[in-house]
Amino acid sequence: MSALTPILTQARAAAVQLADSDAEARNQALIAMAKALRHAQAAILDANRQDVQDARAAGQSAALIDRLTLTEERIDAMAEAVLAIAKLPDPLGDIYGLSSRPNGLRVGRMRVPLGVIGIIFESRPNVIADAAALCVKSGNAVILRGGSEAKRSNAALGDVLGEALAASGLPAAAAQVLRDTDRALVLDLLTARGQVDLVIPRGGEGLIRFVDEHARVPIILHYKGVCHVFVDGEADLDAAERIILNAKTQRPGVCNAAETLLVHADVAETFLPTAAKALREAGVELRGCERACALVSGMIPATEADWPAEYLDLILAVKVVDDFDAAVAHIRAYGSGHTEAIVTENYHSASRFLNVVDASCVVVNASTRFNDGGELGLGAEMGISTTKLHAYGPMGLQELTTSKFIVLGQGQVRG
Amino acid sequence: MSALTPILTQARAAAVQLADSDAEARNQALIAMAKALRHAQAAILDANRQDVQDARAAGQSAALIDRLTLTEERIDAMAEAVLAIAKLPDPLGDIYGLSSRPNGLRVGRMRVPLGVIGIIFESRPNVIADAAALCVKSGNAVILRGGSEAKRSNAALGDVLGEALAASGLPAAAAQVLRDTDRALVLDLLTARGQVDLVIPRGGEGLIRFVDEHARVPIILHYKGVCHVFVDGEADLDAAERIILNAKTQRPGVCNAAETLLVHADVAETFLPTAAKALREAGVELRGCERACALVSGMIPATEADWPAEYLDLILAVKVVDDFDAAVAHIRAYGSGHTEAIVTENYHSASRFLNVVDASCVVVNASTRFNDGGELGLGAEMGISTTKLHAYGPMGLQELTTSKFIVLGQGQVRG
Repeated sequence: MSALTPILTQARAAAVQLADSDAEARNQALIAMAKALRHAQAAILDANRQDVQDARAAGQSAALIDRLTLTEERIDAMAEAVLAIAKLPDPLGDIYGLSSRPNGLRVGRMRVPLGVIGIIFESRPNVIADAAALCVKSGNAVILRGGSEAKRSNAALGDVLGEALAASGLPAAAAQVLRDTDRALVLDLLTARGQVDLVIPRGGEGLIRFVDEHARVPIILHYKGVCHVFVDGEADLDAAERIILNAKTQRPGVCNAAETLLVHADVAETFLPTAAKALREAGVELRGCERACALVSGMIPATEADWPAEYLDLILAVKVVDDFDAAVAHIRAYGSGHTEAIVTENYHSASRFLNVVDASCVVVNASTRFNDGGELGLGAEMGISTTKLHAYGPMGLQELTTSKFIVLGQGQVRG
Repeated sequence: MSALTPILTQARAAAVQLADSDAEARNQALIAMAKALRHAQAAILDANRQDVQDARAAGQSAALIDRLTLTEERIDAMAEAVLAIAKLPDPLGDIYGLSSRPNGLRVGRMRVPLGVIGIIFESRPNVIADAAALCVKSGNAVILRGGSEAKRSNAALGDVLGEALAASGLPAAAAQVLRDTDRALVLDLLTARGQVDLVIPRGGEGLIRFVDEHARVPIILHYKGVCHVFVDGEADLDAAERIILNAKTQRPGVCNAAETLLVHADVAETFLPTAAKALREAGVELRGCERACALVSGMIPATEADWPAEYLDLILAVKVVDDFDAAVAHIRAYGSGHTEAIVTENYHSASRFLNVVDASCVVVNASTRFNDGGELGLGAEMGISTTKLHAYGPMGLQELTTSKFIVLGQGQVRG
């Protein structure tokens, strides 16, 4: 018997209770969770200090230590995020599409929780509060497994949230943090078919790949964002420059940042030199195809490795394309199904781009950086899915639910 | 390189073309497919005769041979089914939820195909026409792999459909039948991550288990239907008898047939003896709990093995339960998440049953046999999913699609 077995059993029991709870009870639990986070600040910071100390002693990178470190402000932000989730509309219980069949049956669908969700994440302990709030709000029990470097912080947060849940009348097991960060337990979670309804990994490519390779339960994930901005032949070039600058530089380290600029040959000569100047002034290194290099002096020649690259850095690949179809073909060949943008004043180009580009978010005349749950109006998100099944794009509360059919009869039988 | 590689490449190319096709072109292709099936009847029957001959020689069961055998009528029914799918509303291109964000961006979702779907099925060759029509209609390329016993029939059907697709201007590879029925090829299909967007197995428990155990691509499946009818304490007992009779006997060999009757203790004494009489007259063997056996003479005592059993036969397990909660607890313990029905005149029992029972279809005062795509108004179905992710219940055209986010801007960037 795996050490996970009792945790799975408790999670399933909690899921049954949550599915039978009302929205008010779940919202009150979230409010209690937020209060408890603020109340237990000292204990959480204490546990976190030890994690940070160990990470420093182990010579971890400054970036990891920054992600790991909690402060009063960060705990406060966690609590605020939980309260914001409490205020979102309840995703459960909606009955929709209720229509009458010829035999008088009324048939529709009802939105219900998925059941038990596993979240496997890396160093940011704030994932715990976020994920717990989203799962509880959507009626799911969650099992959270963070990295060993945040072991004490995660355990402290788990204690606080579990107590708050219990105090508010919901099962503490609605949100369980795995204390044992042994990889064997992750494998048990990933292979618990019939007991775990969904696993979502949140972290770097290594973690995602591990989950993808070992999961035998349903998973939703995204590997990377190789996002393109295509400046069409009839683009507003000022808007195009503003958009590529924002898409590349506003936060280069995230998945919805642009990695490649595609420029229609008709406007390349006008657009590229000035855009390149602006991008360079913003610190961006440009790697161009032959035609781009011919238009912008000093551009580094791009190699084949640049087209599928997710730089997550102030580097941009630049390619001049003959026409709309060549741009779409490039995106099809190298895009990662994450976010793709066109800048165009042409109605037909805009429509066709929306229709034919296969990505979780297709953007016309705006920055790729808008592919984000908050920006798209979901309120809060549990990551962005490039798995097409079930969810494609940012996963909000609704993506943590499913719909069952309901049939309301008056004694009908099948003939 | 696997023999599947060129098939996957062609399927992906076909999926790209299909995603860019309009509904009219896809419907015309379906009409051409239906015509071609009728036109090529002789060739299909010829191929089928050889399969049937081989199956007879191999001593296959009469049931398998019946499922395998095609007739003029069955080919005609296939063609009719394809035409019916052509007439269904187009599931693609719908833009919904388009709303404005504070920065003026219009954000919504657009319904798009999944991409490449694999169908692994057993002896019924008609699955080919059905699945090909549903996939093409929903803009997906499909790879079909049937059993070796129907090898020639499936190949003949594949030829006919491929030619019809090509003649109507869509790629023949929109529906490919695997000629090679080697299991290694199935494994290649099940592990083609990034190339296959979904695999749906259609067949017996052995096939489903094989797919579940080996799939590394997203799958949607259902193992079995252990469906209950719960006769509540305030039920219309005439309706209850009609419903359990229909649920058990109208077609006992299918997954939405009832396998267990739960009877509230308050009505057991009145209901069970007459219901048992009617069920026995319909040829049903009853296996009861102690209390049920005490009320109906000659009932076979049920053992623990009866409660989770999917008989698919004229056998019914019968249990008297103390109350509503005991019925729900029994369903939770033994149900398979397929179809669960309550017979009750009590508003609150009906509501609570709908809310708390976790199944792909929850039925009030009607037969479990209504959990079927046609009966629920989907028009046609690709099997019933008890996988909660993406689809829960009968999968119609919409379940073969996904939604991407679309963002319509006027030059917006993120601040």
